[in-house]
Amino acid sequence: MTVPDKVAIESWFKELQDQICASISALDGTPFMEDAWTRQEGGGGRSRILAGGAMLAKAGVNFSAVYGKTPEKILQALKLEQSDFYATGISIVMHPVNPWCPIIHMNTRYFQMSNGIAWFGGGIDLTPHYIIPEQAAFFHSQIKKVCDQHHPAYYNEFKRWADEYFYISHRQETRGIGGIFFDHLKGDKDLSMLQTFEFVKDVGASFAPIYTHLLKENHSKPYGENEQAWQMLRRGRYVEFNLVYDKGTKFGLDTNGRTESILMSLPPIAHWEYNKKVEEGSMEMFTLNHLKKEINWIS
Amino acid sequence: MTVPDKVAIESWFKELQDQICASISALDGTPFMEDAWTRQEGGGGRSRILAGGAMLAKAGVNFSAVYGKTPEKILQALKLEQSDFYATGISIVMHPVNPWCPIIHMNTRYFQMSNGIAWFGGGIDLTPHYIIPEQAAFFHSQIKKVCDQHHPAYYNEFKRWADEYFYISHRQETRGIGGIFFDHLKGDKDLSMLQTFEFVKDVGASFAPIYTHLLKENHSKPYGENEQAWQMLRRGRYVEFNLVYDKGTKFGLDTNGRTESILMSLPPIAHWEYNKKVEEGSMEMFTLNHLKKEINWIS
Repeated sequence: MTVPDKVAIESWFKELQDQICASISALDGTPFMEDAWTRQEGGGGRSRILAGGAMLAKAGVNFSAVYGKTPEKILQALKLEQSDFYATGISIVMHPVNPWCPIIHMNTRYFQMSNGIAWFGGGIDLTPHYIIPEQAAFFHSQIKKVCDQHHPAYYNEFKRWADEYFYISHRQETRGIGGIFFDHLKGDKDLSMLQTFEFVKDVGASFAPIYTHLLKENHSKPYGENEQAWQMLRRGRYVEFNLVYDKGTKFGLDTNGRTESILMSLPPIAHWEYNKKVEEGSMEMFTLNHLKKEINWIS
Repeated sequence: MTVPDKVAIESWFKELQDQICASISALDGTPFMEDAWTRQEGGGGRSRILAGGAMLAKAGVNFSAVYGKTPEKILQALKLEQSDFYATGISIVMHPVNPWCPIIHMNTRYFQMSNGIAWFGGGIDLTPHYIIPEQAAFFHSQIKKVCDQHHPAYYNEFKRWADEYFYISHRQETRGIGGIFFDHLKGDKDLSMLQTFEFVKDVGASFAPIYTHLLKENHSKPYGENEQAWQMLRRGRYVEFNLVYDKGTKFGLDTNGRTESILMSLPPIAHWEYNKKVEEGSMEMFTLNHLKKEINWIS
């Protein structure tokens, strides 16, 4: 059996959503609210949002499983004939209150077509407002550990992919310190589809321990107006990335997806300041100087 | 002579920038700061920004005149062979402090290629946080008056174009109450290029009287937290339009334009709130119900 059971994948993603919401909610002390929605053409999802929490200003954990005729945009991109599709995944973005806590994003997805083509994709990346080298090392080590358990080449390959993907070209900056990004894992190389599913599960399962650790480390650090102003500008960059470059966002908006679920990734508040200057030697400058591709965060 | 003198056009745009900055600055009591910049491949511009004013939270009035090899993206779009280009224009966005004052945008531009092709484009549109019918009628009447002085069909044609252009498709909302939008006016229909230039001049000259009138009407109206929160959400929509749909923004970012000048259009602060509900019968609902195409604002 080369293609895993989509029912098993879907229920695992749902369970992951439950687990992550439970961990985050317990730490923050604030419940997620849920919106269940259906898609006219087939399927639906459940969007879960936590807003105005003690540690999290806005956190979204979305699950969806949709199916029907494959959207034209996908067929064109893949040069395929019309066929039905099924797609399921979870998508997470969390914007913390404290500027010393990083923004985090994770997505895992499975896509299958009636012609037999199927793949997994996903990624996890961290966007600290202030880059703290030890925490960057911690984040990348954790991700590398997950990758290494499945394939010796995955971390390097998918880390490079994240550096390319999470790049704000008009700012010549990476969005944050990257992480991993992968797509179209079809079980046709080293790992079978079932093994790939195990990899995706482990990436998903790493989210809650990694992010609760980072929140605990930082959420009670003192901060003032300067740090908050910087956080607001960095959130502005996050908006720029998501609306200008992010493929998931573009695809969702183009194909008539549920706008409120797609745009839950945007921060509650963001600022833009014309030609903001950053002082030499400041933490802000240190961060800007490290928003680069190809940094080895672990060593 | 079918093609107007580009030196005359360029100096008129510069003069327009001076006039608009002078009027707005005098009313607000705050000066614009200027950044002159040069473009490596040829030309440059002067960006003028007013931030933290009494009436305007952020206002940008940009002039540019750039030239060189025509960017590949334009050649592809127009299916043309390589040739040199020259482009000049001014671009304006103003975000007011008071939520009762509308956001305004204007752009006028001239584009010319060494193969002899040349055209004018531009537009002016209004984005009230709260739609006030009498002011919407005032705005459209003023614009219509300018159009009618040049061509009896222009207002209707260009108003329809603005309705299509300033549309946030994923929200199924227009950005605001529209205005006029026009492009590729090549002097090959009813008006010569020189006559088209006169039309563009009159559109540009209408900006300061229209917007100073609207600021005076609204800037001292009282407002509270509710109105401010609504303003922040509407600014969020403005960001969505500019980063997802606006062709000028996309083109600028794609072709390595000056990012700070392009993104001066973004508000100083914007908010996003998941699935915001608006009360029936409120001013907010009245506004949402009027963010539609094909409204006749004048009658």
